[in-house]
Amino acid sequence: MSQIIATYVIHDEKDIKKKAEGIALGLTVGTWTNLPLLEQEQLRKHKGEVVHIQELEESERVNQYFGKRLKRAIVQIAYPTVNFSADIPALLTTVFGKLSLDGEVRLLDITFPDEWKRQFPGPRFGIDGIRQKVHVYDRPLLMSIFKGIIGRDIAYLTEQLKQQALGGVDLVKDDEIVFDSDSLSFEKRITAGKAALNEVYEQTGKRALYAVNLTGKTFELKEKAKRAVELGADVLLFNVFAYGLDVLQGLREDEEITIPIMAHPAFSGALTPSEFYGVKASLLLGKLLRLAGADFVLFPSPYGSVALDKEEALGIAKVLTDENDPLKQAFPVPSAGIHPGLVPLLFRDFGVNSVVNAGGGIHGHPDGAAGGGKAFRAAIDAALAGRSLHEAARENEALQKAIDLWGAVEVTS
Amino acid sequence: MSQIIATYVIHDEKDIKKKAEGIALGLTVGTWTNLPLLEQEQLRKHKGEVVHIQELEESERVNQYFGKRLKRAIVQIAYPTVNFSADIPALLTTVFGKLSLDGEVRLLDITFPDEWKRQFPGPRFGIDGIRQKVHVYDRPLLMSIFKGIIGRDIAYLTEQLKQQALGGVDLVKDDEIVFDSDSLSFEKRITAGKAALNEVYEQTGKRALYAVNLTGKTFELKEKAKRAVELGADVLLFNVFAYGLDVLQGLREDEEITIPIMAHPAFSGALTPSEFYGVKASLLLGKLLRLAGADFVLFPSPYGSVALDKEEALGIAKVLTDENDPLKQAFPVPSAGIHPGLVPLLFRDFGVNSVVNAGGGIHGHPDGAAGGGKAFRAAIDAALAGRSLHEAARENEALQKAIDLWGAVEVTS
Ligand SMILES: [Mg+2]
Ligand SMILES: [Mg+2]
Repeated sequence: MSQIIATYVIHDEKDIKKKAEGIALGLTVGTWTNLPLLEQEQLRKHKGEVVHIQELEESERVNQYFGKRLKRAIVQIAYPTVNFSADIPALLTTVFGKLSLDGEVRLLDITFPDEWKRQFPGPRFGIDGIRQKVHVYDRPLLMSIFKGIIGRDIAYLTEQLKQQALGGVDLVKDDEIVFDSDSLSFEKRITAGKAALNEVYEQTGKRALYAVNLTGKTFELKEKAKRAVELGADVLLFNVFAYGLDVLQGLREDEEITIPIMAHPAFSGALTPSEFYGVKASLLLGKLLRLAGADFVLFPSPYGSVALDKEEALGIAKVLTDENDPLKQAFPVPSAGIHPGLVPLLFRDFGVNSVVNAGGGIHGHPDGAAGGGKAFRAAIDAALAGRSLHEAARENEALQKAIDLWGAVEVTS
Repeated sequence: MSQIIATYVIHDEKDIKKKAEGIALGLTVGTWTNLPLLEQEQLRKHKGEVVHIQELEESERVNQYFGKRLKRAIVQIAYPTVNFSADIPALLTTVFGKLSLDGEVRLLDITFPDEWKRQFPGPRFGIDGIRQKVHVYDRPLLMSIFKGIIGRDIAYLTEQLKQQALGGVDLVKDDEIVFDSDSLSFEKRITAGKAALNEVYEQTGKRALYAVNLTGKTFELKEKAKRAVELGADVLLFNVFAYGLDVLQGLREDEEITIPIMAHPAFSGALTPSEFYGVKASLLLGKLLRLAGADFVLFPSPYGSVALDKEEALGIAKVLTDENDPLKQAFPVPSAGIHPGLVPLLFRDFGVNSVVNAGGGIHGHPDGAAGGGKAFRAAIDAALAGRSLHEAARENEALQKAIDLWGAVEVTS
C-alpha cells in the first residue's frame, strides 16, 4: 500500500496519542471501530495510521505563554495515496487542510514514495541545466537584484541592468514588487533588457541572464510566459506564494514555457515562522518547491537583517540539492544582507551549488554596481581557492573597497 | 492619489517608527532622503507612507516567550495603487511579500478605495442570489456535510445525500477531502447526486443544492468547472487556500462558470492563528474572499472543538456581510461542532444572513441524517420566533431527540 507520511509537532492539553488517532481517521475514513467488519475490509486500504509518536518534554516557556500546561509531541501519520489525486492542493488539503485549523499543530515534513513523486515534474533545468545556460560549472553563481525601480522608466532600468552585468554577475533579477505597468511593461523589460545585456556581452564576452518578474492574473500567466519565451526572456521570476504552489507547477509543466523558473519567497513568511502553526520552511520552500518545479529558490540567508534561522536555511538548501531525490536539483539562493565579505561564510554553509545573491552589497559599492559585481566575483574565487579575503583583496581593488566598507568574515576550515 | 492602507501589528526590539518608515520606503521607491529633488518629484506619487503608529504596551507574556523585550505597535502604511496591478497576488506581494519574512510582523487588515475594489468581481450571486436559488428568504440557510465518503461507492454517496435532503436541508456539501477518483469521480458525483436530489424533490417538494468539490490541477479547473455547469451542478466547493485566492477569482470571473462558489478554509490555519505572524482571519477569510468572489465562506465556529476565537469568527462574518461594500455580500458559514442545541447561539451571533452547517450534528441524530435535518429546521424556526428550544421541542420529536442527546443552549435576549 502506497502511503505518504506527514510529520507534525503538536501542542495540546489533552492526550496527544488520542488526538493523533483522531486525525488519522478523521482525515481519511472518518470512523473505524464501530464499523461492521465487512466495511472495515472495504475501507482498510483507505485508512490513515499513526506511525510514530515521540513525546517531547514540556516547555515552561511555552506553558507560560499559553497560560496552561501543554503536552508536546512529534507525530507521524501515514495517509494512503489512493485517497487523493497526485497534485499539491490535494496533498495539502489532505495532510493539513482542516487540521491546520485544529489548535497548535505545525506541519514539519512530508515524505513521499519515489513512484508517487515521479508524478511531479521537478525542475525543468535544475542545477546542471542552469550551469549550462550560464557556462559556469565550478563555482557558486552570482546574482544581483535591481534596486529602486518603481516609478522609473525603461532607460533607468536598462542602465542599471548594464551596470550590474558589467560587474560579471551571472544573473540579474527583477525586484519582486515590480509589476506590469505602462512605463515598465513586462514586454519592454524583456526586450530592452535583452538588448542591454547583448551590448554588455559584445563588450565583455560575458552574458548575464535576466529573471523577469511574471505577474498578473493566474489564468493569464501561461500566455504571458509563452510571450516571454518568444521575446527571448532568459528566466521567469515568480512570487509563487502569492499565487499557489500548483500554479508554479502548471507553468513548469507547460511544454511551451521552456525557460527556468525562479521562485521568490514573498508572502511565505505568513506560513513558516511560528513554532506552533504553519509549515516548516524546509518543506514549503525546499521539498514542495522542488516537487513543483522551481529551478531556483530564494530564501532569507541566515546572516542579514531579514534572517532565517541557520538550521532552517540549511534545511532548505539540503532538500533542494539532495542527490537521492529522483527529481532534478534546484539552486538554493540564500538572500538578503549579503555583501562580498560574507562570501566565505556562504561558501562554507551552502557550498558550490548555490547562488550568491545581493542587492545593497552590489549597488552600494563605492564604484557602483559594476564594482560590486567585481568584488563579489573576486570574493567567490578566493573562497573557492581557500584564500582569505584580505589576502585576495590585495590583488583586487574592488574587493578591497568592499571590505573597507562592509568588513569581511574569515572562515577557518 | 489612490492608496490602499495596510494595518500590521509589529513586535520588535528596535524602534518601530524607524522600522515602519523602512517598510514604507523599502516596499515602494527604495530610498528617499538622499535622492536629488528632481527624482523626488518624479517618484513622489509612488512613495509609500506611514500614516499611523499606535504604540501598545509591552506584554510580559510576550517578552518572556521571546526572552527579550519587544516593543509592540499597530502600524498603518499607505501604498499608492499606481505601484501594482489590480490583482490579489500583486496586492499580497506588495503589502506582505518580503515583509512577511521580516521578523514579528502580522498583517491585520487592508483598506481599499471603492474605485480600486470595483476592479474585483466579488460574489457572482451573493446572499440575495443564493436565496433566490434555494427559495429561502427569511431564515438562516441549513447545510449538511457528507461523512466518511472516502473509499465508498457512488451508491453509498447518493443514499447519504438522499437522507440529508429528506431532513429539509437547503444545501449539502462534499467533504473537502473527497477528490476525483474512479469510484467517486467528479462527474459521477454530479450526475448521480442530481438524480438523487430530484428523487427527494419529487417526494417532498424541497430541492437541496449539492456543493461538489472542485479539485485537480489549477490549469484544468476551469474546464472541469464548465463541465460541471453543463452537467447541472448546483454549487462548486473549493479549497481556495490550497490553490490561491486568485485562482478562485479566475473561476469567478469566467463567464461560463455560472454557478456559486463555496470557499472552504482548508489550509488557512497555516496562515491565521499566530499573534505574531501571518494574516488575520477577518482579512484572509473575510475581506479577501469576498473580493475574489466567494458566495459562501466556511470558517470554524466559535463553539466547537475546532474553534476560532469568537471575535475572529464574528469579524469574518461582519466583513462578508458589510452593506457598505460595493461588492455583493457573501454567506458566512460558521462550521464545526454544530448541533441543533446551538442554533440560538448561532442565530444571536451570526443572524439571519448566515448558514447553519453541520456534520456530526446531522448524521449523529438518533433518527439518522433525515432526523438531524428536521431537528435543525425546527431549531431554526424556534430561534427566529424567539421561542426556547425546549418549548419548541415539545411539538417536534426530532428536535426533542437532538436536545436529549446534545443539550440546548438557551439565549436570553
Ligand atoms: Mg526585493
Ligand atoms: Mg470535512
